[in-house]
Amino acid sequence: MASIAVYPGSFDPVTFGHLDIIERSVKVFDRVIVAVLVNRSKHPLFTVEERVQLLKEATSHLKNVEIDSFSGLLVDYMRKRSARTIVKGLRAITDFEYEMQMALINKNLDHEIETFFMMTSKEFSFLSSSIVKEVARYGGPVSDLVPPCVVSALKAKFADGDQGIHS
Amino acid sequence: MASIAVYPGSFDPVTFGHLDIIERSVKVFDRVIVAVLVNRSKHPLFTVEERVQLLKEATSHLKNVEIDSFSGLLVDYMRKRSARTIVKGLRAITDFEYEMQMALINKNLDHEIETFFMMTSKEFSFLSSSIVKEVARYGGPVSDLVPPCVVSALKAKFADGDQGIHS
Amino acid sequence: MASIAVYPGSFDPVTFGHLDIIERSVKVFDRVIVAVLVNRSKHPLFTVEERVQLLKEATSHLKNVEIDSFSGLLVDYMRKRSARTIVKGLRAITDFEYEMQMALINKNLDHEIETFFMMTSKEFSFLSSSIVKEVARYGGPVSDLVPPCVVSALKAKFADGDQGIHS
Amino acid sequence: MASIAVYPGSFDPVTFGHLDIIERSVKVFDRVIVAVLVNRSKHPLFTVEERVQLLKEATSHLKNVEIDSFSGLLVDYMRKRSARTIVKGLRAITDFEYEMQMALINKNLDHEIETFFMMTSKEFSFLSSSIVKEVARYGGPVSDLVPPCVVSALKAKFADGDQGIHS
Amino acid sequence: MASIAVYPGSFDPVTFGHLDIIERSVKVFDRVIVAVLVNRSKHPLFTVEERVQLLKEATSHLKNVEIDSFSGLLVDYMRKRSARTIVKGLRAITDFEYEMQMALINKNLDHEIETFFMMTSKEFSFLSSSIVKEVARYGGPVSDLVPPCVVSALKAKFADGDQGIHS
Amino acid sequence: MASIAVYPGSFDPVTFGHLDIIERSVKVFDRVIVAVLVNRSKHPLFTVEERVQLLKEATSHLKNVEIDSFSGLLVDYMRKRSARTIVKGLRAITDFEYEMQMALINKNLDHEIETFFMMTSKEFSFLSSSIVKEVARYGGPVSDLVPPCVVSALKAKFADGDQGIHS
Repeated sequence: MASIAVYPGSFDPVTFGHLDIIERSVKVFDRVIVAVLVNRSKHPLFTVEERVQLLKEATSHLKNVEIDSFSGLLVDYMRKRSARTIVKGLRAITDFEYEMQMALINKNLDHEIETFFMMTSKEFSFLSSSIVKEVARYGGPVSDLVPPCVVSALKAKFADGDQGIHS
Repeated sequence: MASIAVYPGSFDPVTFGHLDIIERSVKVFDRVIVAVLVNRSKHPLFTVEERVQLLKEATSHLKNVEIDSFSGLLVDYMRKRSARTIVKGLRAITDFEYEMQMALINKNLDHEIETFFMMTSKEFSFLSSSIVKEVARYGGPVSDLVPPCVVSALKAKFADGDQGIHS
Repeated sequence: MASIAVYPGSFDPVTFGHLDIIERSVKVFDRVIVAVLVNRSKHPLFTVEERVQLLKEATSHLKNVEIDSFSGLLVDYMRKRSARTIVKGLRAITDFEYEMQMALINKNLDHEIETFFMMTSKEFSFLSSSIVKEVARYGGPVSDLVPPCVVSALKAKFADGDQGIHS
Repeated sequence: MASIAVYPGSFDPVTFGHLDIIERSVKVFDRVIVAVLVNRSKHPLFTVEERVQLLKEATSHLKNVEIDSFSGLLVDYMRKRSARTIVKGLRAITDFEYEMQMALINKNLDHEIETFFMMTSKEFSFLSSSIVKEVARYGGPVSDLVPPCVVSALKAKFADGDQGIHS
Repeated sequence: MASIAVYPGSFDPVTFGHLDIIERSVKVFDRVIVAVLVNRSKHPLFTVEERVQLLKEATSHLKNVEIDSFSGLLVDYMRKRSARTIVKGLRAITDFEYEMQMALINKNLDHEIETFFMMTSKEFSFLSSSIVKEVARYGGPVSDLVPPCVVSALKAKFADGDQGIHS
Repeated sequence: MASIAVYPGSFDPVTFGHLDIIERSVKVFDRVIVAVLVNRSKHPLFTVEERVQLLKEATSHLKNVEIDSFSGLLVDYMRKRSARTIVKGLRAITDFEYEMQMALINKNLDHEIETFFMMTSKEFSFLSSSIVKEVARYGGPVSDLVPPCVVSALKAKFADGDQGIHS
């Protein structure tokens, strides 16, 4: 039986912290689907299409990784993709409580679905998409926080007085 | 490639919370090794042999589960068993911090080893081996906390004024 | 002396977690006032009138429960109702820190007022009004999360493309 | 119906933090039983008799407070005393997690029993019996941490090279 | 070598909790710069100019304190001011996790910069600018939470139906 | 005025995490006194003399660092050394709560004394003396966790079946 794991998230944009989880997951599961959540109520910096594209570039060196997007309930998406395992990264306590709640509600919606958590590597324990955007907005260096394609995308996004418009 | 997960712990004694993690793990991994830690510095209620035996009885309905024991470093045991995935249950914040520390030190000792965490089902979020022993010591009911073989073992252990001798 | 407890909250909408706290409170206090906070700065899904009505239906089997609403400071409302005891449910750490802050500020505003906390039953530890709305918005099942009158109200609210309008 | 609350603990020795909880509880409940836990496996500084005596002196100004001791399961003691409400103080997160676990196990042992938590007043948020003993052991001032009878008892206990004997 | 510390924050408005940190910092450092963050994406109650002015009045009794404002990255501001030490107050766990993340990202941006944390005095552990505004908005007393100049400023701000307009 | 900071702890033995705090502290304070706590009630692996000696070797490259030991209350030691600033490292939540309690009790014992906290660098967030001893006990590699002199000392300590004798 081929094991499939889904790694859901906003990825706005993908960071080295996310890549760390993806790279470690593909060693354990036969196939990892990175699924960008289409969330109408947030105000992302990058469109879903841009986020999918950046993830594709950032994971082009990895086999068995697929980039996709979904809207609606995660459990519905899981069933559509015949996947039963969710993978998430944990950095800190606040992550932990929110993710525990999500894992329990997902298990409540579908008892077949399991969520596995990995601790984010210590190098990236402080890293989040929000903090990357904050640093990039003011011209700070982000090349040790995100892959090169995201460095360029952030530069383009903040180049023309576009700061803060989407967020 | 057959996926092997090791679920290490004291299991003094095994509870329904542990069984919950074992039963959910065998759905994701091809084989789960439950590994009882031989820890000289603690004062367990049950011997390692008793703990292994109770785990065997409690998991006799499950395929692909092996009960074993080990001493020394977990990463050394993992290598000996050709396993690279550790499975642990998380109940609460204090668990989280300790387990995060253990996951990071194990990753530091061997970069190939990954730890996956599962949230304990909400029915067992309050359950620990310590609390089971505390309740059993004073004659409280434990049949909805541990499997039948452990109910009997606890009764025998506390029957003859033996209370507190090993702990 | 008849003991009166006030259970304040947004109740947008009431869940089985809230009902659990209400049902357990009326066993301890002579009278429990469930007080819906009128909060102008949030964007609720249900109006205050709808939330009061749903609470009334959901607690119609309980004696000694009154449903009310208030705006302004809780301590002012308490004095108006001649009540000195606040009851709140605690699910998790984030709850804990926020509620501790609120309990301390309320005690600072009026030394006569006491806040008592109850742990949410483990069946509902993952449950919040937000997560119920999120699940209902995408057509997921909520009948084991909220009482029947709320199931209907959510269905009606999300039936006609009304999604997200109030939140 | 007269409302009875039981406030269990080690009280080794009673501090101003404990007294704060007792004084606030007697305003809400008709009667508060302070119950000293006889715990064979710990090494207390004061005997159960000494701890009961110090509590009696420290609460002599309060009506409707009874000092008692118990061994075994708290729920058994509650039934014996026809009490169904437990009162506990919460200072911090570590308190919170342990007490949540105890509240859930007690509810599991007897569904009729409720635990109510009060936040320790901010003046005493840092205070514990352990820290009082640590300060007293080295001759530090404790008169703003514990009532006068306990100041004397600690002085006597540590006067004659008795330091650390019971702990 | 004169030691300079920067104490950054929103200070919307300054509270006795902030003043506590400022007063304790000037005893340790030769000079403390209180730096109001100009954050375009929030909706403050007071303008940056008002916040700076209130801080100046509230600290007029202290030598070696300078009030300033800055926009952009804190590390850039630090370099401009030739300062290498950040001072922050910690009240609770949620503070802790956010501040740890900020300290790590700032250290990542500039290895020369150190962040020192002080625990907020227990009298102010429940206090935040948000809760002050919430209490003042509904006419509750705030004179034991903020200095007199802020009491007046809040009264003026909420006097003329201006409630909630900026927040 | 020369600024003096005291960095107290058990240092059983000193790790790279401790060294990180020491090295960063000497950049901010004119003089840092590393003070080994003589704690009769614990069972250390190294004697106080050994711990002081290892600290001296590990900090021999640093100016303005003094290694000392003390027993009794920290505030008494601070006064004896004419120091008013304590420096501590914070790794995680459990650290945070304990250290907050200690900072508050120390401030209660002497209002002139301030405690400053530094976040442990992310490379060492998982590191503790306990975990180093656990790894060394079973022959695991510790050279990236502790300085060379401690590697040798641990090897000597565990060479001759001495395992666990002091702990």
